[in-house]
Amino acid sequence: MNPLLYTYGDEAPIAAPATPLIASALAIIRTSGKDAISLLASVFSRPHKLMEARGNTLVHGWILDKTAASPGTGPEKIDEVLVSVYRSPHSYTGEDAADISCHGGIATVQGVMRALHSAGFRDSLPGEFTFRAFMKGKLDLTRAESVMELVAAKTDQARNHAVNRLAGSLEQEIQSIKACLVHVLAGTELFLDYSEDEFMDAQGDDEAAGRLPDRVLAEEALVRLRMLADSYRMERLYHEGALVVIAGRPNAGKSSLFNLLLKEERAIVTSIAGTTRDWIEGWISIEGIPIRLVDTAGIREAGLGEDIEQLGMERSRKLLKAADLVLYVVDGSGPAADFDPSLLPDDLNRIILLWNKIDLMPATHSFLPQDALGISAKTGTGIPALGPVIAARLTLTLGGLEEGKPRQNAPGIGTERQQRLIQGAIQSLEQALALADQGEPLDLIAPLLREGVQALGEITGEVSTADMLEVMFSRFCVGK
Amino acid sequence: MNPLLYTYGDEAPIAAPATPLIASALAIIRTSGKDAISLLASVFSRPHKLMEARGNTLVHGWILDKTAASPGTGPEKIDEVLVSVYRSPHSYTGEDAADISCHGGIATVQGVMRALHSAGFRDSLPGEFTFRAFMKGKLDLTRAESVMELVAAKTDQARNHAVNRLAGSLEQEIQSIKACLVHVLAGTELFLDYSEDEFMDAQGDDEAAGRLPDRVLAEEALVRLRMLADSYRMERLYHEGALVVIAGRPNAGKSSLFNLLLKEERAIVTSIAGTTRDWIEGWISIEGIPIRLVDTAGIREAGLGEDIEQLGMERSRKLLKAADLVLYVVDGSGPAADFDPSLLPDDLNRIILLWNKIDLMPATHSFLPQDALGISAKTGTGIPALGPVIAARLTLTLGGLEEGKPRQNAPGIGTERQQRLIQGAIQSLEQALALADQGEPLDLIAPLLREGVQALGEITGEVSTADMLEVMFSRFCVGK
Repeated sequence: MNPLLYTYGDEAPIAAPATPLIASALAIIRTSGKDAISLLASVFSRPHKLMEARGNTLVHGWILDKTAASPGTGPEKIDEVLVSVYRSPHSYTGEDAADISCHGGIATVQGVMRALHSAGFRDSLPGEFTFRAFMKGKLDLTRAESVMELVAAKTDQARNHAVNRLAGSLEQEIQSIKACLVHVLAGTELFLDYSEDEFMDAQGDDEAAGRLPDRVLAEEALVRLRMLADSYRMERLYHEGALVVIAGRPNAGKSSLFNLLLKEERAIVTSIAGTTRDWIEGWISIEGIPIRLVDTAGIREAGLGEDIEQLGMERSRKLLKAADLVLYVVDGSGPAADFDPSLLPDDLNRIILLWNKIDLMPATHSFLPQDALGISAKTGTGIPALGPVIAARLTLTLGGLEEGKPRQNAPGIGTERQQRLIQGAIQSLEQALALADQGEPLDLIAPLLREGVQALGEITGEVSTADMLEVMFSRFCVGK
Repeated sequence: MNPLLYTYGDEAPIAAPATPLIASALAIIRTSGKDAISLLASVFSRPHKLMEARGNTLVHGWILDKTAASPGTGPEKIDEVLVSVYRSPHSYTGEDAADISCHGGIATVQGVMRALHSAGFRDSLPGEFTFRAFMKGKLDLTRAESVMELVAAKTDQARNHAVNRLAGSLEQEIQSIKACLVHVLAGTELFLDYSEDEFMDAQGDDEAAGRLPDRVLAEEALVRLRMLADSYRMERLYHEGALVVIAGRPNAGKSSLFNLLLKEERAIVTSIAGTTRDWIEGWISIEGIPIRLVDTAGIREAGLGEDIEQLGMERSRKLLKAADLVLYVVDGSGPAADFDPSLLPDDLNRIILLWNKIDLMPATHSFLPQDALGISAKTGTGIPALGPVIAARLTLTLGGLEEGKPRQNAPGIGTERQQRLIQGAIQSLEQALALADQGEPLDLIAPLLREGVQALGEITGEVSTADMLEVMFSRFCVGK
């Protein structure tokens, strides 16, 4: 079945695995749509029990393969399952829906999906369950987007921010800012209507010019919108994390530092096997920022010949250019360290210089270069201070935050789409205020305010187009 | 927490993720044990609703982080979840239990697990949920084992066989065979009791010798046990699959054949990223047998120098030795093919000779060597016949089945443990019958019958020791 033949927005019965297709204890297959429960009953061992089940109850039984029925034995059993029954509107999608909890084998999930296809379900499109939830008014768009953020959250902080958006923190802030702007717009339009009705004269127009009604509300909205826009870089940092590369000459102690950081800081567990690379890396969480930590040791050193050495140099160079932060390790116990400045980022904010093996050089301790941190990967000296330094540097360079600490419970922007619309609203509002300052008439200003209100409505989805929704939800994973 | 500190068999509240720790739409965290529901309620946004929920119902709410409560805002929300409530004895484990359906992010699952730990749950041991189900009499051991087989099933046939065991097919067969043996044993013991009580004389002993009561039942039991034992190799083949290696000289058409087979036969989808190897492989299902198909093209040909060529040869050799079946591809359009017999398995049953590119040699078609299959990976000639030939060869060499077709719905052995016990029962029964043939007295035969009954009881778990159970369930995955 070609997914391109389907469209979002019908009420067709849909089904999709909502858990990964990997051997595991349990798997969940989600279904939703018109007649979802009676269709499911047609391939279920206890059809009447299922049909009569009330919402929010569980029914135990077997999924059957009706196509493989033999005269003597009846239909073949596919798996023993528990079905969670949801009745409209009390479901995730707002439609009748059922989640099938089956054994987590790949063949089992495929067998159940085949039975559902035979019963009349089609595969769901990416994000189609959440799309339907939005269409039925169960979620606004900021909450719908937070669902996908939650799935991708790597650290507690990222999860925490997404869950606040799911609980409505961003929606409420947007609604509150929009209410301010609507108030200003209403006042403006009232004035314009009045002036038209009354055929006001030129002097009346002059009076109105530059006098935006409730201007203080528009200014407050602008301040709050800018705070939201500023939050985005920080949210991205917590959500997507940063690439931190450990570099330095051979035997400077790169791998010791790498191993120590992986041990000391909380490693982010993923059960996805790493892809093939000729460097070593791991994900750790430093003050809630997901860090992809790369050890370049081995890239150059594992050279199998001239050509491969060259290749390794090239790869090191690319990694260092891509790095958000480079931890440059120097063997402080040896002769004066020689850098290869061509390898390092131009922006000095993107380098932290680590004077390693200071345990071996207590006497020369005071000769540490300015800005260098003295550490010992062997004894652990200086390592506890390293995490906060890394976090502060990243919140400065990537988060754009001088202070280094994001406001914990403030609403923040979660997606590129939201940020684009916030920026649009800011631009409209800035122009509106600038025109007012220049004494331009309100009928030039009102359309800008309307644009701002429109942009904020698009964020929550009150104002939306089918195209926009399809693009947005098609980025979701299947089964969501 | 060190899992070694826990033991199977307590009623402590346990929790474990039952779905893989990978970003996905949903994740399930299972809980079970004494007070499981009230403990969960302590970190749930609607504790009373949860406590009062009847069995087999769903409750919507939030998992809370009580440790992160701030005076103003109350406890931090971890995730919005649906809780499936099960009341003893109507649950998988037979205990009070709850499944938590949360968003599928790694950080979310970890956050919920942390909340459960703070509420008093401990991590479950591998297979502990199923262990408890067995201890409460919800499942016999053959069904418990089929649960893990289901999870690992790669093809429909493997799933089908496991699901039949889950439905009790093996348990019923074992119980029925055991009933035969118990009948024979009861007759024997009755006779022995009687002869003791009545102080029978030497002649009476002679009469009893060789006259096994209901001997026909013992013989029937033996036949049925042998059929079960024979089923094991076939079940293994369907469950674990076979390694099929495509070999041949450069440009014989190995990769074309590999790609064609992967396209024509049903590929087994797994979302697990392949591990690093310098050969190409894929899983396909041929007549329900999971086949790990390896293309050795590239092992020798991608050599980067003399040493690497040598390494490649070594790897090819190992792969070919390990192969259950080698598809040796010969370029039939070229000069007479030259084999490297040292590379190939000694057992000719483990080789299928494929005369490729027969589309280019219509005239010489009749010169095909005996036992060689003419194919064309380019035009597809001969490919549809290849699947059945591969399946027949594997069922012969690995399944030990001359006919090539396993009995579809016959009960079969699923695990090594079951097979070992069946073999033990067969041995005891064979000895018992042999002694009876030799005219030995019944008091020598009765212990052997008892051993047979005991072995069958161990299969279903009626007879079991704590050690045996721990070893068995500790092979399960966590959350099962």
